[in-house]
Amino acid sequence: MGSIERIKNVASRVAKWHKAGNQVVVVTSAMSGETNRLLGLAKEISDQPDPRELDMLVSTGEQTSVTLLAMALKIIGEKAVSYAGWQIPVNTDSAHTKARISSVNDVKVRRELDDGKIVIIAGFQGVDKLGNITTLGRGGSDTSAVAVAVSLKASECMIYTDVNGVYTTDPRVVPNARRLKTVHVEEMLEMSSLGSKVLQIRSVEFAGNYEIPIRVLSSLTDPLMPLEEEANSGTLVTSFEKEINMEKIAVTGIAFNREEAKITVLGIPYCPDIAHQILEMVSSENIEVDMITQSRSKDGTNDFTFTVPRSDYSKVKNILDAKKENIDVDEITSDSGVSKVSVIGVGMRSHVGVASKMLRTLSEENINVHMISTSEIKISVLIDEKHMEKAVSVLHNTFDLQNS
Amino acid sequence: MGSIERIKNVASRVAKWHKAGNQVVVVTSAMSGETNRLLGLAKEISDQPDPRELDMLVSTGEQTSVTLLAMALKIIGEKAVSYAGWQIPVNTDSAHTKARISSVNDVKVRRELDDGKIVIIAGFQGVDKLGNITTLGRGGSDTSAVAVAVSLKASECMIYTDVNGVYTTDPRVVPNARRLKTVHVEEMLEMSSLGSKVLQIRSVEFAGNYEIPIRVLSSLTDPLMPLEEEANSGTLVTSFEKEINMEKIAVTGIAFNREEAKITVLGIPYCPDIAHQILEMVSSENIEVDMITQSRSKDGTNDFTFTVPRSDYSKVKNILDAKKENIDVDEITSDSGVSKVSVIGVGMRSHVGVASKMLRTLSEENINVHMISTSEIKISVLIDEKHMEKAVSVLHNTFDLQNS
Repeated sequence: MGSIERIKNVASRVAKWHKAGNQVVVVTSAMSGETNRLLGLAKEISDQPDPRELDMLVSTGEQTSVTLLAMALKIIGEKAVSYAGWQIPVNTDSAHTKARISSVNDVKVRRELDDGKIVIIAGFQGVDKLGNITTLGRGGSDTSAVAVAVSLKASECMIYTDVNGVYTTDPRVVPNARRLKTVHVEEMLEMSSLGSKVLQIRSVEFAGNYEIPIRVLSSLTDPLMPLEEEANSGTLVTSFEKEINMEKIAVTGIAFNREEAKITVLGIPYCPDIAHQILEMVSSENIEVDMITQSRSKDGTNDFTFTVPRSDYSKVKNILDAKKENIDVDEITSDSGVSKVSVIGVGMRSHVGVASKMLRTLSEENINVHMISTSEIKISVLIDEKHMEKAVSVLHNTFDLQNS
Repeated sequence: MGSIERIKNVASRVAKWHKAGNQVVVVTSAMSGETNRLLGLAKEISDQPDPRELDMLVSTGEQTSVTLLAMALKIIGEKAVSYAGWQIPVNTDSAHTKARISSVNDVKVRRELDDGKIVIIAGFQGVDKLGNITTLGRGGSDTSAVAVAVSLKASECMIYTDVNGVYTTDPRVVPNARRLKTVHVEEMLEMSSLGSKVLQIRSVEFAGNYEIPIRVLSSLTDPLMPLEEEANSGTLVTSFEKEINMEKIAVTGIAFNREEAKITVLGIPYCPDIAHQILEMVSSENIEVDMITQSRSKDGTNDFTFTVPRSDYSKVKNILDAKKENIDVDEITSDSGVSKVSVIGVGMRSHVGVASKMLRTLSEENINVHMISTSEIKISVLIDEKHMEKAVSVLHNTFDLQNS
C-alpha cells in the first residue's frame, strides 16, 4: 500500500472483484514508508528497542492502512470493515518481531462476509496467548494473507506486489529473464528461500501444505482492467499437476542469495554431539542455518561448515567465540563474502545431468565452488560474491531459460 | 507528549517519581500533531469517515507513544511495559469517537507494578463488548488517567498539560489572572464544562465521585526539578474540605465558552411532551444541550430556548428543520453568535448577592444578557460574543480575583 492515492486504487480493484460476485477478504501491509518511519522513531530512542514494544509500535502501520482502505471502500459504496490482527484473532507464538501464526479464527470473518461486507485484516501482525501484539517479521503480510485464505478455504490467494510475477531469475541481473505463467509451489519454495524476494517463504509453505493457489500480481496495473486479463498478468503458484507442464523443461529458474556468510569449524573429534550442539546454539537465537556440510579429515576429525544470512553473521561469531572453550575443536574460520546460486525445477526429477551441466558451466567461467547442496528439485552452490551476477547470467543461458 | 525529545523528558520525570519509591502508572496521549495527522489521512479519503474505522485509526497515535515511552524508560534503566487500551482492558460502551469508560481491569496492571515495572497505558482509547476499538473523544486521555487511578485506588492522579495549573480565568483574556493552589472539584467541574480547557469534564467527574485528588501540572518544567517543588507548582483539584478554605472567598474563578449557539422555539402549545421531544431529537445525535429556559407567552403558548456548542449548530438546525412539520410550533429562531460567561465558587453557598453583583456589573457595561442559569456554585449568563472579553475582564475585577 503506497500513498492515499494507491489506497483508493486498491479500493477500486477490490470493489471490482467483489462486484463480480466474489466474497473478498483483503489483507494489507502498511503504507509505503510507514514501517520505516516507525522504526526510525524507535531508533531515535534506543539502538536496541525492546522487541515486545517494537511489535506494538510497528503494528500501528497496518492498523492505519486497514482503516483507510475500509473508508475508501465505503466512499465508493461498498460495505467494508477493518480488523487488527488481535481482533480476528490471528494467533501466534510469542517470538516478537519473528512470530509464527498458529491459527486464524474465521468466525468473525465469515459472519461479516455473510453480511455482504468486504473484510480487511491487518497483515504482518497477530497476538500471542498473553494478549501481546506480535509481528511476523518483514514480508509477513504475505504469510498473513495465506493463513487467512487457508482458514477460510479460499479459492485463491491473490498477492499484489511491486512486481508482476515470478521470473526465471532476477531481471536486474539477467535482462532477458522471462515471466513464468505458472510455477510449482515447490519451485517457489526454493526460490523464496534462495532470495527471489517475491513472496515470503512461509506464505508459500502454508499455501502448499493447504493447497491454496497463490497468484502473484502487480499492484501497479490499472485497477479497473478486465478480470480475466488481470488474472493472466501474473504468475500462478500452485501444486496442482494439471497446471504444470512437468515434462517440458528441467530447470524453471535461477535463484540467488547475495548476502550469505559461511562458518567452518575445523577439527571436531568424532563425536556426533558436537555438530548438533553448535547448530543448537545458533538456532536457539532464532538464526536460520541454511547449507550444511560435514567431511572427515585425514587425521580422523571432522570439518563442519554451515551458512547463515550475512545479517546474522556477527551474532553467530559472538555466540561461537563465547562458547569456544566449551567445545573441543581446533579452529573456527569464517567468510562473510559469499553468495548462493541455485538452479530450480520440478522437472529435474525426471532429468539427469543438471548438476554436472551446472558445475561444468561454472568451471568454464573459472568460478570456484565452496559448497554444494542438492535436493530433488534444486542444486545450490556457494561461491564468492564477486562472481554471483556472472554465475546467474551464464546459468540462465546454459539452461535456455529466456526461450523455454 | 510532543517530540521524541519530550518523550525522553517524560521518561526522566517518570523515573524520578518511581525512584522516590512510588509505584507509577503512566497514561499517555498521542505525540503532538499525530492525531491531526491521522485525521488528515482519513479526511483525504472521506469527509465523513466511518466512526468505527476512525477510532481504530486514531487509536494508533497513543499506541505509538506508549511504546516509545516504554523504550525511553528502559534505556535509562527502568523496567517498563506498555499496553493499548484493549489489552488492559479499558472497557467502554460502543459510542465510537465519544465512548464512555465502564470499567478498567486492574489485574494486569497490579501484577506488573508488583513486579517493579512502570506501566504505561494508552490514553483516550478502550474496547467495547464486541472487541471494537473505541476512543473517548478529544481530551479523553485525562479521563483515561483518572479511570486508571480510580481502578488502582491511586493516592493521586497527576495530569501534565501545557499549562501550569488552573487560573481564576483565562490569562489570555485577563492578564492578571491568578493561579489557584487548590480548587474544589465542583468548581473545577463547572470550569471544565464552561470552557476552561484544562481538564476534560468527565475526568473531573470521575475523580470527584471516587475522591481521587488530581494535580494539574505543566509538562514544560524541568523534569528533574525536586519532587516537592514540582508538586507545589500546579493546582490540586480535590474535594477534601481541609484543603479548601471555604469561608474566605465567594468566587474562585470566571469561566467562559466563546462558541455557543442559541435555539429558540416559539409558540409551543401547552403540552409537556414537546420540549422533551425536541431535546430528545437533539441528544439522540449525541449533541449536548447546555442552558435551557422555558417561559409562558401571553397567548398561553410556551417559548423554549436552549444552547448547544456552536460546532453542532447546523446539525441541530437540520434536525429541527427536518422535523418541523411534525412539531406543532409557530417558529424556530436561532443565534450562533453568543458566548457564555460564568462566575464559579463553592464559597457562593454561604454568600448571598453574587448574582446581583454580577448582573449589575454587566448592566453598567451595557452588556445585554440573553439567558441566565444558576446552580449552587455557579451563575452563567449568555451574552453576545462581541462582549465576551469585556465581561470576563470586568467580572474578574469586580470579584477581586487578582488579589484573593
